[in-house]
Amino acid sequence: MTITGQSLIGAMSVRGTHGAFHGINARTGETLEPAFGGATQSDLERASALAEAAFDTFRETPPETRAVFLETIGEQIMSIGDALIERCMAETGLPRARLEGERARTVGQLRLFAGVLRNGDFVDARIDPAQPDRKPMPRVDLRLRNVAIGPVAVFGASNFPLAFSVAGGDTASALAAGCPVIVKAHGAHPGTSELVGRAIQQAVRQCALPEGVFSLLFDSGLSIGQALVADARIKAVGFTGSRAGGVALMKIANAREEPVPVYAEMSSINPVVLLPGALGARGTAIAQQFAASLTLGAGQFCTNPGLVLAVDDESLRAFERAAGVALASAGASTMLTPGIHANYVKGVERLAEHADVEQLARGQAGGPFDAQAALFATTAQAFSADSALREEVFGPASLIVRCRDLDELHGMLKSLEGQLTVAVHLDHDDRAACRALLPTLERKAGRILANGFGTGVEVGHAMVHGGPFPATSDTRTTSVGSRAIERFLRPVSYQDLPDELLPQELRDGNPLVLARRIDGVMNRGENKNI
Amino acid sequence: MTITGQSLIGAMSVRGTHGAFHGINARTGETLEPAFGGATQSDLERASALAEAAFDTFRETPPETRAVFLETIGEQIMSIGDALIERCMAETGLPRARLEGERARTVGQLRLFAGVLRNGDFVDARIDPAQPDRKPMPRVDLRLRNVAIGPVAVFGASNFPLAFSVAGGDTASALAAGCPVIVKAHGAHPGTSELVGRAIQQAVRQCALPEGVFSLLFDSGLSIGQALVADARIKAVGFTGSRAGGVALMKIANAREEPVPVYAEMSSINPVVLLPGALGARGTAIAQQFAASLTLGAGQFCTNPGLVLAVDDESLRAFERAAGVALASAGASTMLTPGIHANYVKGVERLAEHADVEQLARGQAGGPFDAQAALFATTAQAFSADSALREEVFGPASLIVRCRDLDELHGMLKSLEGQLTVAVHLDHDDRAACRALLPTLERKAGRILANGFGTGVEVGHAMVHGGPFPATSDTRTTSVGSRAIERFLRPVSYQDLPDELLPQELRDGNPLVLARRIDGVMNRGENKNI
Repeated sequence: MTITGQSLIGAMSVRGTHGAFHGINARTGETLEPAFGGATQSDLERASALAEAAFDTFRETPPETRAVFLETIGEQIMSIGDALIERCMAETGLPRARLEGERARTVGQLRLFAGVLRNGDFVDARIDPAQPDRKPMPRVDLRLRNVAIGPVAVFGASNFPLAFSVAGGDTASALAAGCPVIVKAHGAHPGTSELVGRAIQQAVRQCALPEGVFSLLFDSGLSIGQALVADARIKAVGFTGSRAGGVALMKIANAREEPVPVYAEMSSINPVVLLPGALGARGTAIAQQFAASLTLGAGQFCTNPGLVLAVDDESLRAFERAAGVALASAGASTMLTPGIHANYVKGVERLAEHADVEQLARGQAGGPFDAQAALFATTAQAFSADSALREEVFGPASLIVRCRDLDELHGMLKSLEGQLTVAVHLDHDDRAACRALLPTLERKAGRILANGFGTGVEVGHAMVHGGPFPATSDTRTTSVGSRAIERFLRPVSYQDLPDELLPQELRDGNPLVLARRIDGVMNRGENKNI
Repeated sequence: MTITGQSLIGAMSVRGTHGAFHGINARTGETLEPAFGGATQSDLERASALAEAAFDTFRETPPETRAVFLETIGEQIMSIGDALIERCMAETGLPRARLEGERARTVGQLRLFAGVLRNGDFVDARIDPAQPDRKPMPRVDLRLRNVAIGPVAVFGASNFPLAFSVAGGDTASALAAGCPVIVKAHGAHPGTSELVGRAIQQAVRQCALPEGVFSLLFDSGLSIGQALVADARIKAVGFTGSRAGGVALMKIANAREEPVPVYAEMSSINPVVLLPGALGARGTAIAQQFAASLTLGAGQFCTNPGLVLAVDDESLRAFERAAGVALASAGASTMLTPGIHANYVKGVERLAEHADVEQLARGQAGGPFDAQAALFATTAQAFSADSALREEVFGPASLIVRCRDLDELHGMLKSLEGQLTVAVHLDHDDRAACRALLPTLERKAGRILANGFGTGVEVGHAMVHGGPFPATSDTRTTSVGSRAIERFLRPVSYQDLPDELLPQELRDGNPLVLARRIDGVMNRGENKNI
């Protein structure tokens, strides 16, 4: 498969004429061929019109059709073979093993949603049967199902060039729901994006779906992304990236004549709480795991442990020393883009120069765009006094906050903004202390971990990759796992419709053999009359 | 129970000192005693602090406790007796039978959510068990449940002084979810609000719940309502009212440091489509039902049929004549407030004076604040040309749009904004035509009715009282029926937590005997190990 630098608009490949840009070799900074043409407003217009035209057909395809489509996308991605991995390594600086794992995860996500479609519970089919003899008024027949919300705009993320990008979780869950998708490719991995986009385009063709089900637009600036979110035909937006970027998209979506939901996964420092028992018993081991989690993928995970909270005692100081030793030997890794690297350097400098912050360790230096890990410590008082210390530094940097006691530590947690994850390290004796923190943890984060770190996000049914603002823009949702499909569904109720006009999901006799809620009680086919 | 004019702040009654206002006899315009004191910012501060303090306790009460609490509220409302109905009749001008029915509905809603709590499916408990032997990486144990989103602000609606007000659907679903509620009372029925508020306050006491679970604030202007939505402790907002009011609250919520969801049910003209077969076969009967639906409750329903679409032929003209005759004999009814009446008169005048609009009928005149029904007709062309014709006129006024053919009718539907309901009248021969319209209807409305009218909203499990903007601010939700609880929940995932620290819903052995999703498959207690 050749990389052409063209946007994919339905079944067509179109060279954009609104500026041009190149992929960059993350390790060397060298330009990668070919040039990518920026999509024009009329390219966007065509993609939106196709998505709109495809919507009613696509959303009513049988769930099995969409399941096969998702699996076909996965097969097409695998069939690109090593060319995908090599291009992605060049563009992102991420190592082969990581990208092969991420590719497996991407294909796994597509299969997960195929399973969600075959299971059928996402429909939330409900029937409140008529009661013609009810007094004082007869009751009508009411039937509810979820339908797709409409065409969806997806913004690829830089830090997961496969799993959160063109065919990532947002795309998979939106397509599963029955929503056509227009992806705005991330400029940091355009070649990877085109390859994956062509895999989806091929799957659309192979499954004989309307071409408008998928388009991929390259953008040499911000204008196409902004216009996409403002487009009246787009009914929801998926985004993973910076707080500033997510908030900007939320503003555009809220200012529309018809505001639409933006699912932005943005900023999280993922506090790690070290309780005294665990710290005393195995602080050194935790320190090594911590250093490994902090430096994994050059620290470029949304769930990277950017904050450590513990009571200041000798055990904590021993932890600090052990973590410092582990970090000092941590090799440098290339960051995703020179821009991300520059921001990281700035963020670390800001901490290093802070009057109330002590630098505990730096990792090894490396190439020009490599991240050198960094560990800092401060007091709870200083942390409280300066909100800048609570801002995410994207990369392998973390700040230890030394607290006077568990009460002060609890107060620090309460003062935080919303988080994707919070991890607690505890031993048996720490259980009472952990129990006291739990109500706060539940309010601050989408996922609470014991004795682990947030990096490594399982793709399953019980995963929440979400959390209160600014971790995400919508704390009611998750962007990973099967519940992600709910973001792209809305309920519709049908009253007294003749059976033949009802959607299959709601017809008498339950032709799709769905679990349906009859008068509020789940029914798995036992009631044959309805 | 005496009406005192005091705000209810937790267990206290507090006379607000920020201005004062009176209830108004809707029929006569006379002032009703006593005066209500407007809550101050410090009253609000106290109510918010109490709600915040109550939240962690209240959200973790056993579902059975909250079920009994909701039932107790219902009992307390009933025990006010006729004093509630009489005060409400005076404040709203609504007749006794309607208000007795609405009270039954209000109590029924509370009981519905008690049932939702006992059923337990709202928890969405999910377990992805650990797989320690998985290759290449062991899988962690992940468990998910829904938790309450936080303290909720509810704005009482003028047009349902019981069912969408202090103890209405928003309050019932938020309390069911485990969220403390602060109600901003609607100024049009303050005495009714206080009586119902005291019933809730009494139920809080009787159930030994933290006092901050409920507060009720009166406001002599807009400032308390605005400050409530801006308050950082409030995590969601329920509102039923005007488009301008809802949009203003959305703006405030979006401008917060932490934006929060606003569930605003606003504006809908509820199109009625008369298909040719039905119109020819029984146009006169439909016309009579239409007139009855249009004038029900002085037309002050969110689901009032404000728009009729049909192909212009002799059957439609016969329908118009029959509807005109029925309306001309329709008695006038008192509107909720002089302000609503004045707006209605203005809206009707605007239609009557429109160059392209023909007045078909007026209902009978009545008292100074009575609504005189009105029926108008226009052409599809004129309707397309002037968006003002698509605006809601709150009251018993409707506009018939005469279309050239079904294609033009379909085009009119496509041009509409989002709606709560759309009704189609069809006979057997109209089924193909209806089928062609259905994809559009599904995209425009939350509820699609056959051969009926949207007034009369069943409170059940399959109801959607929602729809795309501006019908509501969030098309993914309903404000009536059991799914309304979802608005006030968010998912939290627990990874590798020791069993004794897990919430009951997720513990091994399933102590609450919930239906739980194990690796994505619903399990109703068959698997005893998890």
